[in-house]
Amino acid sequence: MDAYTCIRTKRDTRVYQDRPIPEQSLQRILQAGRMAGSAKNLQLCRFVVLQDTPKKNELATCGQFAQHTPSAPLVVAIVLPQDGREFDAGRCAQNMMLAAWAEGITSCPVTMHDGDCALRVLGIPQGHRVSIVLAFGYPPPSAPGPKGTPRIPLEELVHWGGW
Amino acid sequence: MDAYTCIRTKRDTRVYQDRPIPEQSLQRILQAGRMAGSAKNLQLCRFVVLQDTPKKNELATCGQFAQHTPSAPLVVAIVLPQDGREFDAGRCAQNMMLAAWAEGITSCPVTMHDGDCALRVLGIPQGHRVSIVLAFGYPPPSAPGPKGTPRIPLEELVHWGGW
Repeated sequence: MDAYTCIRTKRDTRVYQDRPIPEQSLQRILQAGRMAGSAKNLQLCRFVVLQDTPKKNELATCGQFAQHTPSAPLVVAIVLPQDGREFDAGRCAQNMMLAAWAEGITSCPVTMHDGDCALRVLGIPQGHRVSIVLAFGYPPPSAPGPKGTPRIPLEELVHWGGW
Repeated sequence: MDAYTCIRTKRDTRVYQDRPIPEQSLQRILQAGRMAGSAKNLQLCRFVVLQDTPKKNELATCGQFAQHTPSAPLVVAIVLPQDGREFDAGRCAQNMMLAAWAEGITSCPVTMHDGDCALRVLGIPQGHRVSIVLAFGYPPPSAPGPKGTPRIPLEELVHWGGW
């Protein structure tokens, strides 16, 4: 898939097929996260990969809208040190989700509303936080075609030469 | 360029050719930002586009490492409401920078250390902040080939099944 098409058509799903993520796709998703730029090239994002159902079930109790997470064959938590930038985690997450979409894999970012719960479940040491959890999987065959959720028109988003 | 290659090879530059960004590339960059997902699909990011040299010069005084910004033919500020998520701005910025890279255009995120200065220069109303400024341009012909800055090995970044 060409890059612009991938960016333009990427969509999120919260329902996944019971079908594992191939090793090559997993490697690409992780490499995409690794290659994301970061402020001063500090590279503070770390990834915790979950593929094990009991652990995914536990993690799902830490977010208010995380019920679907265990059904995803691949779950990746992006972890930052306390003073790490959420902006960089966003860049990293987007890279991973786009690399997944290029492989036909959809994804969904899941907020961990109970941050301490997520740290405990994942065994993450003090001084860190879970920025986001990404759920990855193949969309069900019945899923609608590749289109994004409605977006605000460009005319409303863009200010030319100043606000 | 295919999506994974784009993600894997994308690089930042702070030096640009004196060559304008074609209209189609500009549209793609903005559309890429528009299509980025956001928490609850709130779509809080707004873009201020600068192509005018005096305004770019003014904006360059608002960041400690923004000296190169005026040499970029295209400058886009990503603006959030005060309570908007930096994570979403990161997703948006990454989409824009990847769409640019697919067109052979490099980019660089520039922090506005003096946030009030950036708001004033861009005429942005109270209750917002400039999350980041992105500089876009064609890299000089002498620039090194498409490779990223060194990255931490995957083995060090990834924790399997828990930290």
